[in-house]
Amino acid sequence: MNTIGTDFRITLFGSSHGPVVGCTIDGCPPSMSLETGMIEEELILRRPQIGIGTARMERDHLEILSGVREGVTTGAPITITIANMDVDSSKYLRFRTVPRPGHADYPALMKYGESHDISGGGQFSGRMTAAMVAAGAVAKALLATVNVEVGAYTRSIGDVVDGEAHPFGQLVEERRVNAVRAASPETSKRMMKAILAAGEDNDSVGGTVQCECVGLPVGVGEPFFDSVEGEISKMIFSIPGVKGVEFGSGFEAARMKGSEHNDPYSVLEGRLITDTNHHGGVLGGITTGMPLVLRVAFKPTASIGQEQRSVDLGSMSETTLRIEGRHDPCIVPRAVVVVEAVVASVLADLCMRGGFLG
Amino acid sequence: MNTIGTDFRITLFGSSHGPVVGCTIDGCPPSMSLETGMIEEELILRRPQIGIGTARMERDHLEILSGVREGVTTGAPITITIANMDVDSSKYLRFRTVPRPGHADYPALMKYGESHDISGGGQFSGRMTAAMVAAGAVAKALLATVNVEVGAYTRSIGDVVDGEAHPFGQLVEERRVNAVRAASPETSKRMMKAILAAGEDNDSVGGTVQCECVGLPVGVGEPFFDSVEGEISKMIFSIPGVKGVEFGSGFEAARMKGSEHNDPYSVLEGRLITDTNHHGGVLGGITTGMPLVLRVAFKPTASIGQEQRSVDLGSMSETTLRIEGRHDPCIVPRAVVVVEAVVASVLADLCMRGGFLG
Amino acid sequence: MNTIGTDFRITLFGSSHGPVVGCTIDGCPPSMSLETGMIEEELILRRPQIGIGTARMERDHLEILSGVREGVTTGAPITITIANMDVDSSKYLRFRTVPRPGHADYPALMKYGESHDISGGGQFSGRMTAAMVAAGAVAKALLATVNVEVGAYTRSIGDVVDGEAHPFGQLVEERRVNAVRAASPETSKRMMKAILAAGEDNDSVGGTVQCECVGLPVGVGEPFFDSVEGEISKMIFSIPGVKGVEFGSGFEAARMKGSEHNDPYSVLEGRLITDTNHHGGVLGGITTGMPLVLRVAFKPTASIGQEQRSVDLGSMSETTLRIEGRHDPCIVPRAVVVVEAVVASVLADLCMRGGFLG
Amino acid sequence: MNTIGTDFRITLFGSSHGPVVGCTIDGCPPSMSLETGMIEEELILRRPQIGIGTARMERDHLEILSGVREGVTTGAPITITIANMDVDSSKYLRFRTVPRPGHADYPALMKYGESHDISGGGQFSGRMTAAMVAAGAVAKALLATVNVEVGAYTRSIGDVVDGEAHPFGQLVEERRVNAVRAASPETSKRMMKAILAAGEDNDSVGGTVQCECVGLPVGVGEPFFDSVEGEISKMIFSIPGVKGVEFGSGFEAARMKGSEHNDPYSVLEGRLITDTNHHGGVLGGITTGMPLVLRVAFKPTASIGQEQRSVDLGSMSETTLRIEGRHDPCIVPRAVVVVEAVVASVLADLCMRGGFLG
Repeated sequence: MNTIGTDFRITLFGSSHGPVVGCTIDGCPPSMSLETGMIEEELILRRPQIGIGTARMERDHLEILSGVREGVTTGAPITITIANMDVDSSKYLRFRTVPRPGHADYPALMKYGESHDISGGGQFSGRMTAAMVAAGAVAKALLATVNVEVGAYTRSIGDVVDGEAHPFGQLVEERRVNAVRAASPETSKRMMKAILAAGEDNDSVGGTVQCECVGLPVGVGEPFFDSVEGEISKMIFSIPGVKGVEFGSGFEAARMKGSEHNDPYSVLEGRLITDTNHHGGVLGGITTGMPLVLRVAFKPTASIGQEQRSVDLGSMSETTLRIEGRHDPCIVPRAVVVVEAVVASVLADLCMRGGFLG
Repeated sequence: MNTIGTDFRITLFGSSHGPVVGCTIDGCPPSMSLETGMIEEELILRRPQIGIGTARMERDHLEILSGVREGVTTGAPITITIANMDVDSSKYLRFRTVPRPGHADYPALMKYGESHDISGGGQFSGRMTAAMVAAGAVAKALLATVNVEVGAYTRSIGDVVDGEAHPFGQLVEERRVNAVRAASPETSKRMMKAILAAGEDNDSVGGTVQCECVGLPVGVGEPFFDSVEGEISKMIFSIPGVKGVEFGSGFEAARMKGSEHNDPYSVLEGRLITDTNHHGGVLGGITTGMPLVLRVAFKPTASIGQEQRSVDLGSMSETTLRIEGRHDPCIVPRAVVVVEAVVASVLADLCMRGGFLG
Repeated sequence: MNTIGTDFRITLFGSSHGPVVGCTIDGCPPSMSLETGMIEEELILRRPQIGIGTARMERDHLEILSGVREGVTTGAPITITIANMDVDSSKYLRFRTVPRPGHADYPALMKYGESHDISGGGQFSGRMTAAMVAAGAVAKALLATVNVEVGAYTRSIGDVVDGEAHPFGQLVEERRVNAVRAASPETSKRMMKAILAAGEDNDSVGGTVQCECVGLPVGVGEPFFDSVEGEISKMIFSIPGVKGVEFGSGFEAARMKGSEHNDPYSVLEGRLITDTNHHGGVLGGITTGMPLVLRVAFKPTASIGQEQRSVDLGSMSETTLRIEGRHDPCIVPRAVVVVEAVVASVLADLCMRGGFLG
Repeated sequence: MNTIGTDFRITLFGSSHGPVVGCTIDGCPPSMSLETGMIEEELILRRPQIGIGTARMERDHLEILSGVREGVTTGAPITITIANMDVDSSKYLRFRTVPRPGHADYPALMKYGESHDISGGGQFSGRMTAAMVAAGAVAKALLATVNVEVGAYTRSIGDVVDGEAHPFGQLVEERRVNAVRAASPETSKRMMKAILAAGEDNDSVGGTVQCECVGLPVGVGEPFFDSVEGEISKMIFSIPGVKGVEFGSGFEAARMKGSEHNDPYSVLEGRLITDTNHHGGVLGGITTGMPLVLRVAFKPTASIGQEQRSVDLGSMSETTLRIEGRHDPCIVPRAVVVVEAVVASVLADLCMRGGFLG
């Protein structure tokens, strides 16, 4: 369903080619400053960048319909809508009978039948992530009140991998200034090149996003089931195109020995820390006070300009289709702020549940 | 918290060194056959195997306290308890002040305070997974009524990786007969060797589990948020030691081109299929009818016999600790049936929610 | 919080003096006909009636923002907004320091603090019930697909009590044509008189609503906790002004003997029925197939024109206040369609959960 | 389903004639004192009293299976079982084909089919309330840590009505010493007589329970939907035999004028109070700091010794049945502590959600 969260609860609505996408955020405490500009700033990071993005220009006109009075939250649910524009639904007609490979067309048509709104992907569209980013902006504002900060960046595009560690302050700064949301100007250029190359081939390319969170207190997370990793990954998999998520050492941990992987405890300025951070800031589903670190794998954009094999569902005969128009050859740069929004939303919820907020 | 699921709902209780661990399963339809033996058979797969396992012998004496009458479910909640035995709590006393690296001791003590039951890991113990396996046995019985089957195997132990594809029937068979739950006798031997080597070094080793599910109808999953991947991964991260989860091509997708990754549709015996399965049986959070495929990364067992650095929380001074007794040098083989249980539980819930069951 | 329901889930938002009130309905199946007119028709029943209502004229301009395409549901969440108009917030300023007796002002100010939006009652306003009615219209359309129908009427206003039984078809018809939503023209006149008399005294008067539901299958309701009565009454108490709810014989049952109260079973046209309906259509929290019958008690409108004693929260000194403007001397007639909406919404949810719908 | 509550969450299990009834309480904070004796004391109040109760003797042997170590909660879920004894299921066989009037037999058989465990009412048995009382004992202990106290008493049995107001301390004391749980010795005698008279006629009689709660802070309750009244009444309707619930003035409010009903605010010892308490301690779904007052209507026990008309479901022909054995001619006195348990459980949950506890 379209609602997630316990104490900080988000309900999404809208579809790609309807009048709006939007969200209702329930549980946000009263008296918090919340300006339209704070949300717009986040939405800008999600917009396609000239040269590498889709041709669809979204101005992201947003409205706060409830829950905020004179720039301050009232304690009532906050509803935000973002208008859809520049919509041409006609070219989606064919996909009702010939589903696009890699898209949700086929299972969605089987589940929702004739009435499924396939235009622009309907409820399965990446457009829904604009509403997630709006909710994330509220979550970030809330976390900021207790000095918790979330920052993500593009860690890899195809074979271009940024394996370096980046100081948190620097990655947050840098990822706002380059179009691929990379953590350094050097990798930014190489990633840009990989994306443009894919686009020139009428192809697309995947990548990974790394997300970090600093300032979390010890003890966030509600095991057994509502662990930090479990709650985050549940929502992360709602982002279209995600194929995997890992925390700390992640899949690399499977190749390690316990003597390497265990992070020894030591004391720094009177505070307990771990010398390494293979655990990624969570043990037993609860934060340890070390930075939370996770990585998310995105598949290459499913919409590509090349001819692809599919099946006509009416006649159940094999056929081919070509998706027209320009498409993002890589969604990863735009997904960076979406991953941030998800992580912020989940942490806001878990911080509220644990009594660390509000 | 300790309840998960919407229509097929599991509540866990108990702790490692209390009288029992157990679960209550709510929503299981009436008139389903459920014998104690079916649950015991699954629990056997979770037991430590001679030579590689822990010395703690758990006979897993189980009782069905409610919801079943004369081997048939009544529609009322099913409560199952598994008695704990062979318990020596004294050796855990020290960890109340000197937390074990890689364990939940430190954040749990900070969150729950003095009263946290640290013995055997308390509520964070791998022992809780016995209750998950019991719930999973009920879920499997339920899925079997619509011919859905779940099977997992050890895909890697440290550097020993089984990259082969295995026919589903074969892997299900094979993983029951060898101690490491590998999909073939050859890899089984090499994995066993890796585990024994780690044990001889007073060390431990990680690994990965691959899980597959066949027979699923098209349309299971309740997006936007209650996607198949999201629901599964949320519960997967409750299993102690999990660091990552990926579906279909997973993290490999991040390196691929769209033209490689998109699975073309074709027709086989009048049914729509995809020629490849990079999508892993899910698109847009909904099953496509192709086999569901996922992989889970486990870190090396945190309890190792070597001396480790930690901190005395009382004096906030650095110290060392050595964990006594024998410990599983690798939990992966025992986790295979736990992953199956989780996947079965989540799919039972989503199948019920989608009207495919009960 | 502002979300209710499991399979048919409603999220409310907005406030009395913000731009809109609205709701998102999640879980409504695809392919159902849903026209704006169907919702407007219900909203008309909630409007103040000339002569007895408030002077605030609400045209209830509504918009369906998502989930409906060309008059048919798509399976995606349905978001409906109803614009607020004719708003004068200035007169509410005083209530921030001098709370109105019988209103939520005092506890809301204590809970949400300075930022609480007190204008028009904010989130506690009867205006929120417009959004409930909109959601109820969707629920009614859904129930109609399986021939379940909900109808309510004003059973009493002050001392004017309509103790008669009314054939369902007749009460549904009649309650739409008279301004007090009574089940017969005679009582309508006497109730109207009671309301006008209260208004002339600058006073208000309470009353009760009776709601019935016919066509329900046997077996709706999900005990132990999610009983028909429990689910309905939870949502009923969200309607401002409700003080009690009873099913079937209700409080009268407390005075009865078992031999009178037990409804004997008999057979009518091959179907099991009960000869009487003291149980009100529910036993053990599950529907029996007999008409569901409930009654809801409403207190007199809290806003009255007479001077009332209150306290200035700033100086903590006793004072008086007089609420200006015209107010509904009785909300009961307008609450009739709200009670219907609530009962329809809950039954739609329980019917979906029980597999009777969609 | 069988789980209720958000932050203080109760899962019930068991059935009347299975080995146990029990509950799991999730969310209870660590470090709270919890002894078996505290729960037993509450269960004693639920036991049938010599002379007026059923002949079934339940010794209520209880066990705490998890969540408590050395008399102190650990923060892990608390599971409590209460053994069933003295069970004779044979006499329930006939009700599988000839449902008892006033019981859940008929709808339960239609919903759960052949496998429904009808013995002793199965999951619909009043026996389930023993588990509710156990959970309530935990909730009471938790509320006591912030000086919130819940007390109930029998307000009426048939025509014997106790319309007096009773000081809270006195009613709590008195209702423990007389068998009908009345608030004064005088009414106790008259109520006892009414119950015995019904029993002598092989009949039964209904009644009402009044419940009060003192010490609540201002601001408990989570509107719009999770109001104090809504949350309490949802759980109250799970108690077998409940037909109505009302708060404060309740149904009487429907006959009142606003000028009578509105409770004027005044100041007492620097604290805001209301002079009267028609609102019953809640406005807008949130507590006002005045005593919470509610009344619950119970129907007469459905099991009576007289011959009753029913239908044989096999042949669909009318027949009669007589329920053998001795039965409670009135469940109201035993329900008093159950109502207390429900109110305490819901308030514990809402206090936790509002940040007033733990």
